[in-house]
Amino acid sequence: MSLTFYYSPFSSASTVHAVLEELGIPYEKVRIDLQKGETKKPEFLALNPNGVVPLLVQDGAPIFESVAIILHLGESYGEKKGLFPAAGLERAKAFQWLVWCNVTLGEALSRHQRNTSERIPKEQHNAKAAEIAKADVEARLSILDQALTGKNFIVGSSFSLVDSHLVGWAHYVEMCGFALAKYPTLQAYVKAGIARPAYVKVMKPDA
Amino acid sequence: MSLTFYYSPFSSASTVHAVLEELGIPYEKVRIDLQKGETKKPEFLALNPNGVVPLLVQDGAPIFESVAIILHLGESYGEKKGLFPAAGLERAKAFQWLVWCNVTLGEALSRHQRNTSERIPKEQHNAKAAEIAKADVEARLSILDQALTGKNFIVGSSFSLVDSHLVGWAHYVEMCGFALAKYPTLQAYVKAGIARPAYVKVMKPDA
Repeated sequence: MSLTFYYSPFSSASTVHAVLEELGIPYEKVRIDLQKGETKKPEFLALNPNGVVPLLVQDGAPIFESVAIILHLGESYGEKKGLFPAAGLERAKAFQWLVWCNVTLGEALSRHQRNTSERIPKEQHNAKAAEIAKADVEARLSILDQALTGKNFIVGSSFSLVDSHLVGWAHYVEMCGFALAKYPTLQAYVKAGIARPAYVKVMKPDA
Repeated sequence: MSLTFYYSPFSSASTVHAVLEELGIPYEKVRIDLQKGETKKPEFLALNPNGVVPLLVQDGAPIFESVAIILHLGESYGEKKGLFPAAGLERAKAFQWLVWCNVTLGEALSRHQRNTSERIPKEQHNAKAAEIAKADVEARLSILDQALTGKNFIVGSSFSLVDSHLVGWAHYVEMCGFALAKYPTLQAYVKAGIARPAYVKVMKPDA
């Protein structure tokens, strides 16, 4: 089986990159230059019509959406390696937190960035919407913080690919200006997660 | 095994409701009154701290996020009933389209609604952001339309729970004011999907 991973460093591909490194499976990397618009070129759009990274191509078949890629890698390799729960209720919780991250936390963060980021033209910003989005991101971080109470891992009793994804996301939310000090359990979880060799490796400038 | 489904008619719970009906498995329904704030009460928040429907409780264990519930039902019941692909590349495509729907299409639609809906205070609207969001929703509908070219089903050669979810979503996007006539393949797909008995049943006012 061949796996080709299309990514850009410090992008939404980073959590999938960390997952591939945690799994320790062989894969080919294709580094995409977002500034040069490489995701908008016809040859890339033929693989991912959304024009974004990450993208995983397995034996010629493209799979897009980071959560979908992680679910597929979890099922194909993660279970055997003890990094993804077996089918059943524990796996359902893995589904839940992976999806919650990109749908519920992701929507609030995206809304906050759309209304505040310098990358979005100022004429699209709305101060009141930004304020509501900020409160929503904080409420959602608090949900994750609460869910981690008394636990080192979000699902089951050992580190899984779900932790890899949540840690990367929470770290990114922090880089967007949300102080994690308000969420001590989450903060400790992120601190432990970003110290893992797989994460350290993908966060190097030449990753 | 006991399954309890917390829902509200004509809500984001509807596609999960249709999936349960497609599966034809026994489950108990708990109808939630959103107007009365029933999802914000402590007993509901103890099950889903996000304070929203849908919620599925299996043998006392709550599972939130519609895509996560569908993934779990697909794996637990759908595969055996020919309504969810077996593990492998076809299932990876099921993951991809379920996640894409709520993350990528969902984010653009949410952004559009936040900037236009009467349910959101006008002071939070931004006309330019609404215009961009509208174009983004349309571009994403076009991606789905293209992906359906020459096919009756998004994954594999028969109807699956993924179709159930996508049809319900596309129908909702249409209700939000996006004419599907621009996307003839998608329009035909939605027309066929909403005629299915499971969908007709969940869209009845007394569902």
